[in-house]
Amino acid sequence: MTIPRSAPTLNDVAQAAGVSTATVSRCLNTPERVIDSTRERVMKAVQELGYTPNFGARVMAARRTNTIGAIIPTMENAVFARGLQAFQEGLRESGFTLLVASSSYRSDIEEEQIRALVARGADGLLLIGHDRDPAILAYLQAQNIPVLVAWSFDPGALLPSVGFDNRRSMQALADTVIGMGHRRIGVISAITRGNDRARLRLAGIRDAVALAGLGEDAVTVIETTYAIETGAEAFEALMTSQQPPTVVMCGNDVLAVGAMKKARELGLDVPRDVSITGFDDIELASLVDPALTTVHVPHREMGRRAARALIEMVDHGRSVPSEELAANVCMRGSVALPGRDTGATA
Amino acid sequence: MTIPRSAPTLNDVAQAAGVSTATVSRCLNTPERVIDSTRERVMKAVQELGYTPNFGARVMAARRTNTIGAIIPTMENAVFARGLQAFQEGLRESGFTLLVASSSYRSDIEEEQIRALVARGADGLLLIGHDRDPAILAYLQAQNIPVLVAWSFDPGALLPSVGFDNRRSMQALADTVIGMGHRRIGVISAITRGNDRARLRLAGIRDAVALAGLGEDAVTVIETTYAIETGAEAFEALMTSQQPPTVVMCGNDVLAVGAMKKARELGLDVPRDVSITGFDDIELASLVDPALTTVHVPHREMGRRAARALIEMVDHGRSVPSEELAANVCMRGSVALPGRDTGATA
Repeated sequence: MTIPRSAPTLNDVAQAAGVSTATVSRCLNTPERVIDSTRERVMKAVQELGYTPNFGARVMAARRTNTIGAIIPTMENAVFARGLQAFQEGLRESGFTLLVASSSYRSDIEEEQIRALVARGADGLLLIGHDRDPAILAYLQAQNIPVLVAWSFDPGALLPSVGFDNRRSMQALADTVIGMGHRRIGVISAITRGNDRARLRLAGIRDAVALAGLGEDAVTVIETTYAIETGAEAFEALMTSQQPPTVVMCGNDVLAVGAMKKARELGLDVPRDVSITGFDDIELASLVDPALTTVHVPHREMGRRAARALIEMVDHGRSVPSEELAANVCMRGSVALPGRDTGATA
Repeated sequence: MTIPRSAPTLNDVAQAAGVSTATVSRCLNTPERVIDSTRERVMKAVQELGYTPNFGARVMAARRTNTIGAIIPTMENAVFARGLQAFQEGLRESGFTLLVASSSYRSDIEEEQIRALVARGADGLLLIGHDRDPAILAYLQAQNIPVLVAWSFDPGALLPSVGFDNRRSMQALADTVIGMGHRRIGVISAITRGNDRARLRLAGIRDAVALAGLGEDAVTVIETTYAIETGAEAFEALMTSQQPPTVVMCGNDVLAVGAMKKARELGLDVPRDVSITGFDDIELASLVDPALTTVHVPHREMGRRAARALIEMVDHGRSVPSEELAANVCMRGSVALPGRDTGATA
């Protein structure tokens, strides 16, 4: 195997800087272990020569590339952004560069991206949630690459996770809402297929309904994609039905903000005419008026812990125990007792 | 150079699928050019063997990795998310995978990420804005890698760009505001150093002030980082000064939403007591109450065109002409004529 175009080598850099190739490697891989004056000399040579650490060479030298890959379902609406930012900061402190791909909530795209990141030599991967084709899990095992899951805690899953209990935390919110007297619950869920967070949140609402002894017909569910516009459309469908709900529980804050927007357009007062809840506690949740009742997800803490766990896996080549973080109900102005129109009608 | 761990090769896949290695390459690089039945057979062998296309081998075979890198300043607040999503969709239609890094608006981190993406074999790069150390530009030229800039149109810059005129579009908004009678203008800008968008938007406001024959002291500028909280703090500083402005023009919508939030806390009515403007027209801009006057950036169109341009550069190994898109003033409820307190006082 030869290098396709003539490019400066590790040797060239070592000669220019007057150090050994091992020292150049250390400067590139673990700069914090090299004294400043040497590192500066080496990095000057690297820049002047336009040297790019070669993937193959680095794998052979250090067996790592100091690159971590993350695949998130979407970059829009900041659902994953805050957690990912903290994840990146944690990685960077240890000398890793984060490369992110977004899969548009599509498992086929996620698989392409997993393969691309592995092919690009990622030392480890962060994935969101546990729902995944067994074939791609087998592929990851065969590649022997450290993989951590975030946003969904499941100690029984194949992959270790740093996350929270989507089901229990949504149940806690539904318990509260039902405890306030709501008996007709509209749900705007994300597409549950291939999305354990969406599936478990919906299951949490059904748990609360069962626990309260309500019939299954207390709940009307619409599944749609995560977006403000789709949330608005689903809300309109729920509210123009024969028996509109007194509370609309949304699978995340983005859907809920869409619901609130549509409520305004329909002339419905929130929470007097209808209560609305979200999930995630993104910044938007406290900016809308009234502020949105939601489930607070500890995004930054999750990102920091995920970085620590994945670095541990990469550095020591072993798995880590899954970690559960709390996600708590956050009551704000968008929820009230159900209005006069509650209970059995028509 | 040998492969560090024993792994299935292209040959193994070709044998298992009963096709030539060239056909396997085509299935991996340009699957749309392979008939379905063959592609399915090959991909089945790829999966069963756990084959990962090797970076070096692919570079040698096709001289490309079908990976494009993008480095954006931040993943938070959805400023770049919509444009990037459209960029990714455009790339994907042509068989490219997008890997994204976010630099926290720091040039040193951006340089690390540029080097990491080049080292991982990216076929091309998308960068935001033109302000960049000449050394890293020289490095990119030496690597002979296609690089396109977005979010900032500058036909005179070294790198081709698909973007808009930050200066003129902000000037148009400032012209409008001054035309309404505002004479004391507070500006909450992002840090201008290393950020041409921030620098040019501020210059656009000064252009409008000069054109209107107002003195330089008509403008009070606070530079801060892009965040809702920092926007709120800067707004408070402006409004509690001896001569508070009648309009606060913000470098982007995120800062402006922070200003609106703080206005509410201070008991100031927007726009009666003070007008507020943003820039970008992110979704948030029309969700706040009153809706935010801003400059509409054609995020999706910019992302689509950037994908087309960069693919052209990668496919044909040549540069492309820069493309300018319109960014238009979008008047909404957050701006009104200045109140009774306008003009020369104290």
